[in-house]
Formats: sequence, structure tokens, C-alpha cells
Amino acid sequence: MRGDTVLDRAQSDNGMARIARDGFQAALLDLIEGWLGNAIVDVVACGMVGARQGWVEAPYSSVPSEPVPAAPIRVPNTDPRIRAFVVPGLKQNSPSDVMRGEETQIAGFLASRQNWDGVICLPGTHTKWVQVSAGEVVSFRTFMTGELFDLLRGQSVLSHSVGEGWDDSAFAEAAADTLSKPEQLAARLFGLRAADLLHAQDAGVARARLSGYLIGAELAATRPYWLGQQLAIIGAENLSEAYAIALQQQGAFVEIANSIESTLAGLLLARNLTRQTA
Amino acid sequence: MRGDTVLDRAQSDNGMARIARDGFQAALLDLIEGWLGNAIVDVVACGMVGARQGWVEAPYSSVPSEPVPAAPIRVPNTDPRIRAFVVPGLKQNSPSDVMRGEETQIAGFLASRQNWDGVICLPGTHTKWVQVSAGEVVSFRTFMTGELFDLLRGQSVLSHSVGEGWDDSAFAEAAADTLSKPEQLAARLFGLRAADLLHAQDAGVARARLSGYLIGAELAATRPYWLGQQLAIIGAENLSEAYAIALQQQGAFVEIANSIESTLAGLLLARNLTRQTA
Repeated sequence: MRGDTVLDRAQSDNGMARIARDGFQAALLDLIEGWLGNAIVDVVACGMVGARQGWVEAPYSSVPSEPVPAAPIRVPNTDPRIRAFVVPGLKQNSPSDVMRGEETQIAGFLASRQNWDGVICLPGTHTKWVQVSAGEVVSFRTFMTGELFDLLRGQSVLSHSVGEGWDDSAFAEAAADTLSKPEQLAARLFGLRAADLLHAQDAGVARARLSGYLIGAELAATRPYWLGQQLAIIGAENLSEAYAIALQQQGAFVEIANSIESTLAGLLLARNLTRQTA
Repeated sequence: MRGDTVLDRAQSDNGMARIARDGFQAALLDLIEGWLGNAIVDVVACGMVGARQGWVEAPYSSVPSEPVPAAPIRVPNTDPRIRAFVVPGLKQNSPSDVMRGEETQIAGFLASRQNWDGVICLPGTHTKWVQVSAGEVVSFRTFMTGELFDLLRGQSVLSHSVGEGWDDSAFAEAAADTLSKPEQLAARLFGLRAADLLHAQDAGVARARLSGYLIGAELAATRPYWLGQQLAIIGAENLSEAYAIALQQQGAFVEIANSIESTLAGLLLARNLTRQTA
């Protein structure tokens, strides 16, 4: 980037789950070597790269806290062509919870919105619900909804009955069902298998229902977060749309924010903090 | 067996998930070849061996139905030293549900109990709750509780925080928690990871809590099944005990039945039906 202008982009799937601590720099250089020259380039990272098994452990800040309250952590002993930094995550002591990466997206989202108070939902493998007030993250909760979906779809008995495809009304019905009766989730799940065996239920309908049941149960648990609140969703486009549909049918008003823009704005903010302290 | 006397036992893990249709007889003969002689031996089987991907497809009986209403299905073209039979499962059209194997255990359980009406819980990978009246299965529901536990413990982010060991009071507290607030299940799950990262929660306590959260949520969904009902549990000993503890702290009275005895009694009953029709 030059200022807030993106000059080029690169991505890879080599994250914390796939590489050891001493492999992070090589994985990065594989991606960006072509961008490096004589001038030292700043690299600012967020997410699991700052976990104990990451490139450098970046200790959590405790909530209540600004999402990115201080300069990121410098990674020691890097290639001389770069200066690398990792943004710390946030932790909450009770109930126990942690985030890494979402704090940067939240900071980026808030950077362009003066005095924004409300609740941010960041759907994904581990969906976060975050209460924001006066520029600080006040509290948050994590839901394993995305990981449950992947495990059930890919590795459970439901893998035989859940396929590609989607059905909007099946999703909406399923989400409304477990939102009002969250205790039925476990029974509904096996029902997807039985509906295939007995009634040849379409595999795309089953996929939409599985997603709906899980998201509906999450929305039942997060009702105090979203009911009557100013609400924003930051996440992948299709998933954000699904959450928005389920919330809108409960009468909630939802803004969907672009997750890449939020991440870039947050990383830029973190980079500016490094220069203030340099 | 000779009559209801067990002469010898053998077991293997080669089930429907591991072998193709043409592999069932070989897997069986590997186990029992030493028992075969000049007289033809009857083999009576139940469970997934009767599924579409099993040894022979044994079409479901529809509830309401006696658990084993008719003679089992003969497997065609077997080794001449055996006559093999498979007990059909039960199906329920609405809500869609199926069982294979549990019907045999239920038949065996009822065989020694005249006029037993009530509800049977069969905990396992796919836990069944079964309403029995006048010798018939009236309705049932399946919960993926055991499979969810295995996936979460073995393959999710929780695998880093859930280990061996157990803690009775952690289990009981967790079960009571999601039984009263089932919608919190998804949040409680990630809390097990966060409690490890922030507070070094013991991995056995985490295992007991994971089990408790899942079983508590199942008991919230099955309340109409167990509240004020005569109640029996047929399953593996440790798991049956866990369900019984969670139910007893809700004031339910629970009988634990021996699952192997129930299975053998049910298979004997099915075998006797083959002779009546032979």
C-alpha cells in the first residue's frame, strides 16, 4: 500500500494451522518477495499470526479496550528488507473469551464512523459478537457456528445428505425454527439425514437447513446483543447475507460492512501507531 | 448361543463404515469360522448391517409398531454353513427419523417386563429417545450428541483443550447449565477453549464440561419425553451413568438396563420369529 491506496494484492492458505513458527517469514516472502527493493518495507499482520503458535506471540489486551489500543508488536530478527509487526488480540476474563484479527477489522470499521455505538457481528469459523461503546470493545462472545457447520457437513453422518446448492426459504425457515426453539437443534440435525433417507430431501436444501439451524441457534443465544441495537456485520459476503436475512426476519436493522476494507483500514491504523512510537 | 445361554463371544470393529456389501460375510466368517461345523448355524444380526450400504437392505417398519414385529430378513446366497438374518429397523415419517439396532434392544428389554409403558433412552453416537406404550414403539427422536462430542473433541479447535480425565461436578454443572439455557450451547463450546488459553483449565474438566453441555442441551430438547415418565436407559455403562446423573438432578427416576443383555434377548426373540415362519 502507499498511504491508503492498495498497490498490489497476494494471498495464500499457509496460516498458523499449516506452518511452524520458523516458517512464517518464508511463507510471507514467497508472497511478497517481488515487492521488496532497497527501502525497508513495513509489514503489518493480524490474526492467528500473533498466537502462541504464531510468528510472534502478541499478548492480548483486556476488554474494555479500544480494539487496537497501542502499537503492534515488532517481530524480532526478520529479513533486513522488512520490519514486521503483529497486532495483539483482545481477551475477556469472564466469561472467558479471546479474539485475534477481528479487533483489527473493528478498528478499521470504526475509523470511518465517528461516535458509532452498537454491536458488530463478525461471522466466520468462530463468529464473534462484539459490543462497542465510546470507541471501546466492552464485551464479546465467540460462537463455533462456522466450525460446527464444516464438521457436520464434511465429517459427520450428515455428509451423505448435505451437498452443494442452497435454498433461501429453507434457510430462513430453519433459522426461525431454532431461533424460537434452540433446544431442538440436536434433533433437527439428525432430521436432515432422516429426511434424505425417507423422503430424498435435496442436498442443497439440506445444506441451507443445516446453516439455518446453526445460525438460528446462535441468534437465540445472542438475542441480548442484537435486539434493539445498532447492528453491523463484517464478514464474507455470502455468509454476511445469510446472517442479515435471519436477523431481518426478526425485525433487526443490519448494516453489512466490507470486510476487506475494514481489515485494510485497521491495519493502516496499526501501522500509523508504529510510526508514532518509532 | 444355545437357547438363551451364551457359549462364546467375539467382536470386531469391521462395520458398515469400513466394509463394502460383498465384504460382510468374510468379516463375519473371520470371527466365527471356528464355531461352524456340520449343522447349519443361524446368524441373527441387527443395526447398520441392514442399511442400504449393509449386507442386505432390511426395509424399515413404520411406527407405531412393535419393535420387532415380524421375522427378520434372510440374507441371500450365504456360505452353506450358515443361515443369516437381519432385523429391520424402524422409521417415523413425521418428524422424519430412523433407527437400526435399537429396535432389537428395545424388544429385548421389553421381553422381560410385562406391560412396561414409558420412555427408553439409548445413548450413543446417535442417541435415541423412544416412547413405548402397549408393547409398541409409538414415537422416537434421534440426537447426534455422541457424534458431536467425538467431532468436537477430536477434530475441532477444542481438541487442543479437551483431553482425558473427568470431573463429576463439572459435568453436572455443565449439564444443568445448558438444560436450563440450551441456546447458550454454542457460546459455551468456545468458552472451553478460552478457559484453557486464559485460565489453563484442566483438560479432564473440559472433557466433562463438553459432555455435560451437549447432554444438557439434549435433555432440554427431550424434556417432554422424560418429565414425569417411567424411564429406562440402555447403553454403554459410563455413558448411561452420565445421562442418569444429569436426569436424576432434575428429579427424574431412572432405571439403567444392561445393553448387552437387552441386545441378546432381542436377537433371541428375532431368531424365534424365523423358526415360526420357517
